[in-house]
Amino acid sequence: MGKDLPVSPLAPASFPDLPTIEGVEFAAVQAGVRYAGRTDVMLARLAPGTTMAGTFTRSATRSAAVLDCQEKIGHSDTGGAAIIVNSGNANAFTGKNGADSTHAVTSAVAQELEIEENRVFSSSTGVIGEALPHERITAKLSELKQNLSADAIKEAAQAIMTTDTFPKGAGAEIEIDGQTVKIAGFAKGSGMVAPDMATMLVYIFTDAQADQKKLQKLLSKLTDVTFNCITVDSDTSTSDTLLLAATGASGVNVDGNAAFESALHQIMLDLAHQVVRDGEGATKFVEINVTGAASNTDARTHAMAIANSPLVKTAVAGEDPNWGRIVMAIGKSGAAADRDLLTIRFGDILVAENGWVAPTYNEQDGATYMKNQNLVIGVDLGLGDGQSTAWTCDLTHGYISINADYRS
Amino acid sequence: MGKDLPVSPLAPASFPDLPTIEGVEFAAVQAGVRYAGRTDVMLARLAPGTTMAGTFTRSATRSAAVLDCQEKIGHSDTGGAAIIVNSGNANAFTGKNGADSTHAVTSAVAQELEIEENRVFSSSTGVIGEALPHERITAKLSELKQNLSADAIKEAAQAIMTTDTFPKGAGAEIEIDGQTVKIAGFAKGSGMVAPDMATMLVYIFTDAQADQKKLQKLLSKLTDVTFNCITVDSDTSTSDTLLLAATGASGVNVDGNAAFESALHQIMLDLAHQVVRDGEGATKFVEINVTGAASNTDARTHAMAIANSPLVKTAVAGEDPNWGRIVMAIGKSGAAADRDLLTIRFGDILVAENGWVAPTYNEQDGATYMKNQNLVIGVDLGLGDGQSTAWTCDLTHGYISINADYRS
Repeated sequence: MGKDLPVSPLAPASFPDLPTIEGVEFAAVQAGVRYAGRTDVMLARLAPGTTMAGTFTRSATRSAAVLDCQEKIGHSDTGGAAIIVNSGNANAFTGKNGADSTHAVTSAVAQELEIEENRVFSSSTGVIGEALPHERITAKLSELKQNLSADAIKEAAQAIMTTDTFPKGAGAEIEIDGQTVKIAGFAKGSGMVAPDMATMLVYIFTDAQADQKKLQKLLSKLTDVTFNCITVDSDTSTSDTLLLAATGASGVNVDGNAAFESALHQIMLDLAHQVVRDGEGATKFVEINVTGAASNTDARTHAMAIANSPLVKTAVAGEDPNWGRIVMAIGKSGAAADRDLLTIRFGDILVAENGWVAPTYNEQDGATYMKNQNLVIGVDLGLGDGQSTAWTCDLTHGYISINADYRS
Repeated sequence: MGKDLPVSPLAPASFPDLPTIEGVEFAAVQAGVRYAGRTDVMLARLAPGTTMAGTFTRSATRSAAVLDCQEKIGHSDTGGAAIIVNSGNANAFTGKNGADSTHAVTSAVAQELEIEENRVFSSSTGVIGEALPHERITAKLSELKQNLSADAIKEAAQAIMTTDTFPKGAGAEIEIDGQTVKIAGFAKGSGMVAPDMATMLVYIFTDAQADQKKLQKLLSKLTDVTFNCITVDSDTSTSDTLLLAATGASGVNVDGNAAFESALHQIMLDLAHQVVRDGEGATKFVEINVTGAASNTDARTHAMAIANSPLVKTAVAGEDPNWGRIVMAIGKSGAAADRDLLTIRFGDILVAENGWVAPTYNEQDGATYMKNQNLVIGVDLGLGDGQSTAWTCDLTHGYISINADYRS
């Protein structure tokens, strides 16, 4: 809420130059939903023929906008489409009123852009439990429409920030059969000041042509190994939303195309990492590689148990090579582990093996390694071929300050 | 490790006067396992005829002492028994060597007290991954034996502390058929300084007479609604151990006795609450009552999701009546919930109902309530009859300081 948090030490040097996606235009305005003196609503207009796919929070207390998107996402109408997002108010846990506000916004956008309401997708992020002043958003639709521009993606990325300390973007251009396909996306996440909620919102655009069901399947698969493998504090928002819009303007069909999948995967991973790098109070970026598990599911359970452990995360914050806490997290995860077959590495340093500290390990090497800003914790279970990677940040006084010291 | 942490603001005024249990003697010594200038080993000698029951960590990376206790606990020999516990070194993740050290200690105790080794139960708590200097413990056995006294339970409670800020005891005397049965117990837990691990150790003694299988069943049932319903930081130790010794000296059989069950339940709850009250950095004690869930299991899942949520715990630390974070925790728990049927209360204050803030609620009442040291968060799911209660503390700068700032 306008708290001037310092930019995360893990932020990239600058917002990337992103390719312009044919068939997509952006606009951002100051609607004063809650914040003053900054943009807080972004509109993306999508050309007729655009295919939409989306993944959403699994929370049982999802917001009105998420429920609305989930209802609409499967439609494959070929008319134009739009995405409208506001920051400052999450319109979550606002009872029946919440759905009315979402409808008020999406129907007004449909009217303004002359498209079907079931092709208007919305997200809201910010304070929860307060009625969304949707009339402040709808009052700005004509201005938004006038300002639509193919080059305003950075402005769109900025408008959806809450207490993010930097805007997050990623993009790629790939060649498929001698033709160029472009992808560009942006995200917000994990900056949070009470009483706001950490919400992850991600929007990705491409001029590729795609079948809705195939695109949805690909997006779900890639979400599972990118955004679903990151964690800041183990808490889950009621509003997490990822939308992918394929305008088809390039004329290149990417159904089943490996190069497209790979490029999209990289963009999603990049955005997911940026969300972690903007985690509240983060000073270290940690990759956790689990191999040798009984299954991929077990590997994921172990990786997330380590990534979510407050004791592991505080040890990282303290630059303490406390491998015992990693053993503890593996032990409590509930997935299969054999104490005496465990191998633990910090980067390339062999720390523990055969159920005890490695004979070659010395604590000073571990302590030196932990001073790095980017850390890799490797765990091999010695049980099978299952593997998984998770990404997280450390748990610092900054997290407590952001979430406890500032009061609503 | 001798860090002079201030006593928790949630500590009871003093260690309670506990009844003397016939058939149990205690001794404590300074063995210098790791700490200097304080007792760090306690021995409890149990008279012939004592029945033992125990519950243990579910960690897949359990310590050698836990594995050893689990092997021995089912035996119903009627010879004498003993419990020996050291602080300063957890003998966890010490490979095959760990089992050898446990054996060295328990066999030496058996010899010193002239009892069977399979009736000697041990626990170790403290630093992990370092070999237990078991010879420092065995060198003190003769001194321990000489010092055994029926009245040294407080000294025993103090010897097992690591970075606990106060010793934890609870007891009761009950009348059964005109005869007196006594119960007394002590615990350690949740004080932790890197690289130590938060380990919960609990020892309870009674002069009741009991069948081993029935006592074990009762203990497991009561553990489930006491120690398994508390959480400080969601992390689980490799060494958690609860032992219950029934000497039978009162001559009163308590199999199936409701008064005994009730008294034991209260003692276990009291000790469990004291562990939470000594949680790292704790400044608030929080009870979470979940009712109206689809099942008791669902209620437990919701209660623990709220109790473990860093966002809920930091809001409590900040005295912020941030009920939105409770909605979030319920939503992410994975158990059944209907947003529009939720009711949330702070103490007696109705905060939210029907999927939105209650019309009668005002934020100032909530803010005033959150200033209390003891808080009750009530959640009704409106779905069924399932209920569960969990206890936790807040997440403060103190937790980060203890776990990140002090380095190994």
